[in-house]
Amino acid sequence: MNNALQVGATIGILGGGQLGRMLSIAASRIGLRTHIFDPSANPPASHVTDSVTTASFDDADALRRFAADVDIITYEFENIPTSTLDILETICPIRPGRRALSISQDRLTEKEFLNELGLKTAPYANVTCTSEALQAANDIGTPSILKTRRMGYDGKGQIRLETKSDMLGAWDAMKGAASVLEGFINFSQEISVIAARGVDGQVACYDPSENVHRAGILHSSTVPANLSAAQRMDAIFLSANILNALEYVGVMGVELFVTPTGFIVNEIAPRVHNSGHWTQNGCDICQFEQHIRAVAGWPLADGARHSDIRMENLIGIDIERVSELRSIPAAIHLYGKSEVKPGRKMGHVNFRT
Amino acid sequence: MNNALQVGATIGILGGGQLGRMLSIAASRIGLRTHIFDPSANPPASHVTDSVTTASFDDADALRRFAADVDIITYEFENIPTSTLDILETICPIRPGRRALSISQDRLTEKEFLNELGLKTAPYANVTCTSEALQAANDIGTPSILKTRRMGYDGKGQIRLETKSDMLGAWDAMKGAASVLEGFINFSQEISVIAARGVDGQVACYDPSENVHRAGILHSSTVPANLSAAQRMDAIFLSANILNALEYVGVMGVELFVTPTGFIVNEIAPRVHNSGHWTQNGCDICQFEQHIRAVAGWPLADGARHSDIRMENLIGIDIERVSELRSIPAAIHLYGKSEVKPGRKMGHVNFRT
Repeated sequence: MNNALQVGATIGILGGGQLGRMLSIAASRIGLRTHIFDPSANPPASHVTDSVTTASFDDADALRRFAADVDIITYEFENIPTSTLDILETICPIRPGRRALSISQDRLTEKEFLNELGLKTAPYANVTCTSEALQAANDIGTPSILKTRRMGYDGKGQIRLETKSDMLGAWDAMKGAASVLEGFINFSQEISVIAARGVDGQVACYDPSENVHRAGILHSSTVPANLSAAQRMDAIFLSANILNALEYVGVMGVELFVTPTGFIVNEIAPRVHNSGHWTQNGCDICQFEQHIRAVAGWPLADGARHSDIRMENLIGIDIERVSELRSIPAAIHLYGKSEVKPGRKMGHVNFRT
Repeated sequence: MNNALQVGATIGILGGGQLGRMLSIAASRIGLRTHIFDPSANPPASHVTDSVTTASFDDADALRRFAADVDIITYEFENIPTSTLDILETICPIRPGRRALSISQDRLTEKEFLNELGLKTAPYANVTCTSEALQAANDIGTPSILKTRRMGYDGKGQIRLETKSDMLGAWDAMKGAASVLEGFINFSQEISVIAARGVDGQVACYDPSENVHRAGILHSSTVPANLSAAQRMDAIFLSANILNALEYVGVMGVELFVTPTGFIVNEIAPRVHNSGHWTQNGCDICQFEQHIRAVAGWPLADGARHSDIRMENLIGIDIERVSELRSIPAAIHLYGKSEVKPGRKMGHVNFRT
């Protein structure tokens, strides 16, 4: 394969949280090194990597040194400042590329992109001022959710409107941040597809998982999802369309709502995804290795699944369950975070079902 | 469980080769940190660990600092100098314990221990001088193999005798190193049991693998081995007896020859073992995590296997096979060694069968 990274090459990873940590472990398993760039001291990925740069994403010198030390750059989160990418990209290629990042960094742009592809999204309205806020509440109705266009994750930057009269307070709380108001839709299930696309355009998807959220945070993912064979194929084709349209390279998480009239795309994440953690115990090649293979220019694995798995997140004090979980057949994955906080992802468990 | 290491505790690992590397990855997966002690610069495990001490095994100061920094000490190889253990042990517990080490460091002691347990070994004779050498050649006959009692692995320190007249030259080549002459036995298969024993005395074994050696180095391990159910149980009971007799804590590799009159114990290794690498893709809890669980005082996994696997080692220039292996369904595991040498273990591949 042309331009594939050689064994022993180094992958730079922006962000050293649990996703960076599991990417780093997967890279080392196939003989590649990693260099983690993270602003915080002692991030989870720093325990399992060759090199760490501790610096801010606006430290141009540190970014240049980092980019010069690695053979390819990838990332574990989508909210990377544009100015950071501008500096890195002159020195070293970034995969997945900037188009996927710019689209997924902005809820409005993302929805417009998906609609242009012919995919359905929840009804939405752009909100940049008080008059648009009031108009949106009228157009979309309630219940609905006001979300910041940028920097939201795990339910952060979101306010639920029960009645139209909630809008003024909600918009006030956004402090002028450009937002979208999203209407609710009736769905029977939430599913996601972990899709990958290689440098050569090859696409491989894992079986869709069925996801349950609690308080805006993923609680569990179960594979196989309760879908018909036709639905399964549709979800995979739809996801492949998204990756192809973006000429994407890497793993992407595609979150879908299942409705009586077909799928609605909730969100795309241009990175490995929490709902793909089941692949660590359901497949020989997990989503983390698949992402590393893609950005390294290696051939993708075919996404084959050997086992049925239910993944459960360990959030905050759920970490205390470990003392009981280690006594039963379960694959425990912990992130090495020393401080427990409410809503903080501390680890996950894969149960064979 | 009493005295189990807490999540976030640190395991010290003596030796930073591929076994230390895979132990370190497994430890981090369950939220434990590692500190690698190795005399060489840039050993494979150093790419995936929190802390590295680069120092000789006779550097008392470095050993003391290492022992003070960790919560438990384990090792990836059995040839650790006694003086090293003496220093470490006053500061931090070492698991598996010294009895297993002292027995497995010396082929003669090991055989005597096994025979006392009622287990069969190949016929052998102690050789410490020329007259014993000649007597041994008479008693054991040929073909046979003269092996140093200490420090041998992967066929090193071994000379094959085709006729009795080869003995003087072979003994001369040993340069006075205490040795044993081992007789050949007729066996149909080589198998091994990867057995584990916890702090609480619980024993768990993986299914035996069937192993093929080439030029004294493991070539492949296949699970399940071609054994009857009764043989499988016998191999596991026999292994459990060894671990219990040593009050062992950790994973041990027990190599057996299958003969028409039962099993003959070839060798025991008080550590994770090359013939157990298949567990990384055949089981949810691999031998590396099992070892970490044992030495950390955690409950053991039950050794359940979800898939049939054939493991093949990548030795020396076999590493060049990677460019073809990554295009087929296979789980590739590479050790991050930059220099390729004949006979050097560079990685392994697990094939689902």
